[in-house]
Amino acid sequence: MVNKDCLCSYRVPVRMNMDIATVNALPYEDFVNLLGNVVEKCPIITAAVWSGRPFLNFTALEAAISEFIDALPESGKEGILRCHPDLAGRDLQSGTLTRESREEQAGAGMDALNSADASRMAQLNLEYKERFGFPFVICARMNDKANILRQLSERCQNESAVERARGIEEVRKICRLRLQALVLIDAPNKL
Amino acid sequence: MVNKDCLCSYRVPVRMNMDIATVNALPYEDFVNLLGNVVEKCPIITAAVWSGRPFLNFTALEAAISEFIDALPESGKEGILRCHPDLAGRDLQSGTLTRESREEQAGAGMDALNSADASRMAQLNLEYKERFGFPFVICARMNDKANILRQLSERCQNESAVERARGIEEVRKICRLRLQALVLIDAPNKL
Repeated sequence: MVNKDCLCSYRVPVRMNMDIATVNALPYEDFVNLLGNVVEKCPIITAAVWSGRPFLNFTALEAAISEFIDALPESGKEGILRCHPDLAGRDLQSGTLTRESREEQAGAGMDALNSADASRMAQLNLEYKERFGFPFVICARMNDKANILRQLSERCQNESAVERARGIEEVRKICRLRLQALVLIDAPNKL
Repeated sequence: MVNKDCLCSYRVPVRMNMDIATVNALPYEDFVNLLGNVVEKCPIITAAVWSGRPFLNFTALEAAISEFIDALPESGKEGILRCHPDLAGRDLQSGTLTRESREEQAGAGMDALNSADASRMAQLNLEYKERFGFPFVICARMNDKANILRQLSERCQNESAVERARGIEEVRKICRLRLQALVLIDAPNKL
């Protein structure tokens, strides 16, 4: 059954390990379909950087995304964070995470928390969101359960501007790993 | 069956005709879930303007969205356009349009083109995309089939910068109508 309310469809089969020449040759529709979720639920960012092709290599593509994010006003950066799901939150429970988030959260054990950890996570997520007005974002692939809980607790104490910048730093890490799953690093540009 | 690759889920039942006080009181998650597709597949825009609440009225909310779009670099505006589906294109045929786009395209008869019109539309969409690197965007609710075909044909002749601005102008019209389906116009702010 097709979910007709889906905001983005991955119609093009995911091609792992594309070299940069292949990426540069993609029509915008395929580029957005394949790379549109390297920043969670922000296909506009991928769609925007297509304007800057061809990219010399992986690093240049990653830099273009990063520069687009940098140029956004602070509200736009908060907007990016607000497009992220909670860790071990209701999207995980209801099966509405994006594929990427589902795999990342599972990899960090977020789908198998014991009751005490689940309660602690829910409480801290709530506290964090009420304090900052955006969710706690961390690169789950680079952290385990204990580390995530510790950082969530610690980061609740930060100032808003510090935490907004910290969240965006984590967005960049997530983006890099998602890109690495699709595009070869430092493959030569054949164009 | 839940589509787990869905980029956005509408978990909160759509509440029609919210007054602005209700909108202003929404936590960011509900705000984004309810209003996240007023600009097609760009929930970051809705998520960003939440930072500017409370809004005096409908007009102020609409203006905040419009100002966010205005402040984007030209690549970002092209990015918005690239998040839009073709009219009578493969998303319509494969059932992967967002709910809003599906209703808008159906209202303009895009789901019931005769063979000749469908071929003409496909040919012109292709020509437009090859010329500009983004899709033809028009507010389908404000146009009928004949008008859409005529404008698509005419707009293929524009310069890129003119057409980018024209596309964004149509995005604003679409956004206004989508907002009007959710938020009361000029309801007083009770906050």
